[in-house]
Amino acid sequence: MYYVVWHQNPDTDAIASAIVYAQYLRDQWEEAQAIMLGHPNRETSFVLEYAAMDHPELVTNLEEWSHIILVDHNELGQSIEDRHQHEIVAVVDHHKIADIQTSGPLMMRIEPVGCTCTVLYEMFLTDGYHPSPEIAKLMVSAILSDTLHFRSPTTTQRDRDAVESLAAWADINDVEAYALQMFDAKSDLAGIAPADIVTMDYKIFEMGSKKVGVGVMETTNPSFARAMEDELRQAMQQIKHDDEIDYIIFSVVDILHEVNTTIVLSDAEADIIQKAFGQTTVGGKADLGSRVSRKKQIIPALHDVLA
Amino acid sequence: MYYVVWHQNPDTDAIASAIVYAQYLRDQWEEAQAIMLGHPNRETSFVLEYAAMDHPELVTNLEEWSHIILVDHNELGQSIEDRHQHEIVAVVDHHKIADIQTSGPLMMRIEPVGCTCTVLYEMFLTDGYHPSPEIAKLMVSAILSDTLHFRSPTTTQRDRDAVESLAAWADINDVEAYALQMFDAKSDLAGIAPADIVTMDYKIFEMGSKKVGVGVMETTNPSFARAMEDELRQAMQQIKHDDEIDYIIFSVVDILHEVNTTIVLSDAEADIIQKAFGQTTVGGKADLGSRVSRKKQIIPALHDVLA
Repeated sequence: MYYVVWHQNPDTDAIASAIVYAQYLRDQWEEAQAIMLGHPNRETSFVLEYAAMDHPELVTNLEEWSHIILVDHNELGQSIEDRHQHEIVAVVDHHKIADIQTSGPLMMRIEPVGCTCTVLYEMFLTDGYHPSPEIAKLMVSAILSDTLHFRSPTTTQRDRDAVESLAAWADINDVEAYALQMFDAKSDLAGIAPADIVTMDYKIFEMGSKKVGVGVMETTNPSFARAMEDELRQAMQQIKHDDEIDYIIFSVVDILHEVNTTIVLSDAEADIIQKAFGQTTVGGKADLGSRVSRKKQIIPALHDVLA
Repeated sequence: MYYVVWHQNPDTDAIASAIVYAQYLRDQWEEAQAIMLGHPNRETSFVLEYAAMDHPELVTNLEEWSHIILVDHNELGQSIEDRHQHEIVAVVDHHKIADIQTSGPLMMRIEPVGCTCTVLYEMFLTDGYHPSPEIAKLMVSAILSDTLHFRSPTTTQRDRDAVESLAAWADINDVEAYALQMFDAKSDLAGIAPADIVTMDYKIFEMGSKKVGVGVMETTNPSFARAMEDELRQAMQQIKHDDEIDYIIFSVVDILHEVNTTIVLSDAEADIIQKAFGQTTVGGKADLGSRVSRKKQIIPALHDVLA
C-alpha cells in the first residue's frame, strides 16, 4: 500500500495532488490511499464538493515503515510527524529542496512550475493516462489556486497549457468565473478562530540555524483581516511560542489587486523584513508590494538573509 | 551558461550524462557546457574514443553564482567543491537523497532505475528529442556500465528498453561483445598507483555523524587486486587519514561471476560490516557474496547501521 501524504496546513494543491496521484496509482493496479494531515480550508471544501469527491481519510498513525509518497512538499518540518519511521518511495513537488534524506533510491519529480498538479499532468501525458472528469476538475482547481489564476509570478506557460487541456476534460467552460467562485469560497473566513486563520496556509522553514513561520492569507476581501488585526497578532504571538520558532510573519495577499500587506510581530521580524526586502515596518505592518508568492518572492529573500 | 557537473571520481555514467545533457541543452538553443571533476577511468576513455568524443574541459574554478546542473549525484560530499556558491538549477540522478538544499525551486528528476542515462533517455522520449548516433553510443555505454550489462540488481526493465532503442540509434549490433570490450578496458589497471585504484570509483557518504568512504573496483580480472592487496590496504589507510573519515572499505567486484570480495581495513570496519551484512571478516577480507551494487546493496545496509 502506498500512502500519498500532503503537507500540514494543506492548500487545494496539496489535497488535490494527493487524491489525484492516489487515483492514478490505483488505475495502475497499485494499492494507494491519500491520507489527510490537517483539514481542508473552505476553498478546498468547495472544490471537493464541486468535483463530487469525498474528503480523504484522516490518518494520524501509520504502521512503521509504511511506503509513503510526498506531494507538494519535501521539507521535514512540513511533513507527516513520524516521517523518519517510513520509507519515502516517491516525491512529486514544485518547491525548493531543504532537508529530505532517504536510505535508498526513489522516484522524485520536481519541476519549476506553478503547481504540483501541473507536474502530475505532464507525467500523465507521458504515460498516456487520461484522468476522469472529476480528477481533471481537482487538477484545474489546484492550478488556478496555486497560481492565483495565473497572477502569481510562479506561473509558467506549462501551467496555462495544463489548465487549457484539463478544463476541456473537466468540462469547465468559464475558467475565469470558476476561479472567482473558488477565491470567494477561500475568502469567507467568518466564524474561524484567529489562530486557525494564521495557520490555514502556514509553513515553517529552517534557514541556517533559525526557524521561520510564514502564514499567508490569499483573499478577495482583505478588509476582513484589517478588522481583526489585533486578534491575528495575539494568535501569532501564541503560535511563535508554541512552535518554538524564531520569527513569524503573516501575509495578507489581496488576490485581485495583487498586493501583499504583511503583519510583522515584533522588532526581530521587522529587522529581517528590512534586510530581505528593504521595507520598513510601519504600525506593525510592512508593505511587500506585489510579492504575492511565498515560494518565489518571500522565502528565497529570507533564506538569503538567514541561511 | 549552464555548467553540467558530474561527481568526483567519475564513472562512465557520470561523464556520459554530463556530455549528453549539455548537448541536449545546446540543441534547445541553450548555452551549456559539461565540466570535468576528476579524470575518466580507462573504461570511460575507451567509450569516449569509441564515440569519437573529446574529453570535456577540465574546469577547476567557476565564477560565483554560476548556474549548475548536477548529474548522477546529489550529495554535497561528492560534488563540486564550492557548490554552495552556485545556484543548482537542475538535478538528473538515480541515487538516494542526502543533503541537497536549494534556495529556490528547480528541476529535479530522479528515478529508481539503473543509470542516469536511462532517466535522460526517458526525458528525451517525452520531448521527442532524437540524439545523434555519437550521443546514443555514450548513453548505451553508460547503461551497460552502471548495470554491469544488466547483471546488477539495480537493473530495471526501463534500462533494458533504453539500451534496445539506443543501440539501434547508435548502430551497435552486438551489445554483448561491446559490453565485454568495455569491461576489459576498465579491468586493465596496469601502471596505475594503488591510491588511484582505490579512489577510481570512490564515494564518501555521510551517515548520521559518521563519514564512510566506499570504493569499488568492478573487474573481469579480480586476481589483479588479490596480487596487490597489501599495497591497496596501505593506500586505504592513507586515504582514510587524508579524507578524515571514520570508515573505509574497498569492494572488488568480479563482474562476470557477480561476486563481491571486500577489503576491510581495521576492526572498526569489520564491526560495521558484521552488523550491516552479518559477515565476519577473515584475513582482512569479507565475502559479501552477490552484493555487487554499492547503491542498492551496500549503502542502504550501512546507512541502517549508522544513521
